[in-house]
Amino acid sequence: MSRKPITKDLAGLSLGSKPISWNQKDVMLYALGVGSRPDEDLEYVYEGRGPKVLPTYGVIPGGLAILSVIENVEIELAMLLHGEEAITLHREIPPLASAVVKCRITEVYDKGKAALIGCEGLVEDDKGPICTAKSMLFVRGAGGFGGERGPSTAGVNAPPDRAPDIVAEYQTRPEQGAVYRLSGDMNPIHIDPDFAKFAGFENPFMHGLCTFSVVGRAILRELCGGVPTRLKTLEGRFADQVYYGNKIITKMWKTGPGEAIVQAETQKGNIVLSQARTTYTS
Amino acid sequence: MSRKPITKDLAGLSLGSKPISWNQKDVMLYALGVGSRPDEDLEYVYEGRGPKVLPTYGVIPGGLAILSVIENVEIELAMLLHGEEAITLHREIPPLASAVVKCRITEVYDKGKAALIGCEGLVEDDKGPICTAKSMLFVRGAGGFGGERGPSTAGVNAPPDRAPDIVAEYQTRPEQGAVYRLSGDMNPIHIDPDFAKFAGFENPFMHGLCTFSVVGRAILRELCGGVPTRLKTLEGRFADQVYYGNKIITKMWKTGPGEAIVQAETQKGNIVLSQARTTYTS
Repeated sequence: MSRKPITKDLAGLSLGSKPISWNQKDVMLYALGVGSRPDEDLEYVYEGRGPKVLPTYGVIPGGLAILSVIENVEIELAMLLHGEEAITLHREIPPLASAVVKCRITEVYDKGKAALIGCEGLVEDDKGPICTAKSMLFVRGAGGFGGERGPSTAGVNAPPDRAPDIVAEYQTRPEQGAVYRLSGDMNPIHIDPDFAKFAGFENPFMHGLCTFSVVGRAILRELCGGVPTRLKTLEGRFADQVYYGNKIITKMWKTGPGEAIVQAETQKGNIVLSQARTTYTS
Repeated sequence: MSRKPITKDLAGLSLGSKPISWNQKDVMLYALGVGSRPDEDLEYVYEGRGPKVLPTYGVIPGGLAILSVIENVEIELAMLLHGEEAITLHREIPPLASAVVKCRITEVYDKGKAALIGCEGLVEDDKGPICTAKSMLFVRGAGGFGGERGPSTAGVNAPPDRAPDIVAEYQTRPEQGAVYRLSGDMNPIHIDPDFAKFAGFENPFMHGLCTFSVVGRAILRELCGGVPTRLKTLEGRFADQVYYGNKIITKMWKTGPGEAIVQAETQKGNIVLSQARTTYTS
């Protein structure tokens, strides 16, 4: 299969369907990778109390759309960064499923030095849609192909000019990425010091989707009363790298019934998830 | 299949062969469960540097002999404790294998209140034997069937009357057992607070084989120069429970060329792995 060059013509391209199945062990391994612990979240890591499935688990099957893009488009792995993610939950994610992921490229923008590619994975089983994951992929050095620049996102989901209503802190672990990657994203940039340096980073850093899920766990606990079906959507931008050992501090502003603006920072104050918003059943 | 009662007649019983296969993800997940971290042991948790396989991984396929015993003998899970373990490495464990485990009961002793059942799993692939794991299973409340008491093990592998040559410390994690159990031993006693209390323990505690492997990692690093093929055997008794959050302090006494007596304690001074011995290529 020959890979296509990045051009504006990719927008709207269907990438077909990928089959995927998962089981209790998969969802528990994922929960452990994003920081669930038996002393705090037993029902997510022990089949004897469920297991319940974290809503953000949807990014794992949904993320096959990213894999589809990499398989079908000329992208150099070391130049690829995950820019934004949005997940929509259509129903509770089952702990055991045999599903397909319908993958497509939604948009392609030319940011000058970089290309921005949007892709979407709709996860369905025989009972219907489960969730949709949408990702914006930032490909460094791949711009200048003559596409549109795309809409400005300045000011989108800006936090209100007041202190957050809720702040939740999470301490990342040195082995966090090593556990998380076993859920499927084995990109060496998140574990290999040499590869990370080659790609221009001081050290391996956490998967954006792992940060996303740490934030999702904070929202689940603080805004959804720990009930997975209450979380409906979560979206945000990966604004900076989280390095292993960093704290992830999630700030939440309630902006309406079942709606909150979210921002995550490290203990150093750098914003790592920006322009984030969640909706939930209030 | 009807299960057999515990009697002395079980000794020598072949339990047949079980097929097992494993891959890179399995051996890396195991390494993470026993405390390997990318900043210290990258080659065990990253396929781009191997992955190398920890020698104690052999207890995972070899442990199918324990499963065979549970399937074939009338044992109440809450009354079962893992008493001793011994592993022999016949060659380097490959990171990817399709193997069979030849399982048998080696001995059955009547300890009065408890029964002691020895079982062995010989792991082979088409290139020949890989490793042998031998386990002694202590079944509380199952003695008094009229069998022999078995040999006394007092004084076996006693540490020399001097300070250890090497001491290695390891801090266990709250989620350690939750990660470790995904390698196969899903006994709820290691994660479920209610089940642990039902079985007479204050809290869930670490798998004996996880402690065994933490000790094995210390030996690999301190006595084998980090070269897995140099570790030949490791045996020991599970003398007490390790609770999550405990430190495991491994003491090693070199007692001859390629031979050391080993003992592991927690930070409270209670011995958790006793009468332990390792042999290695010096």
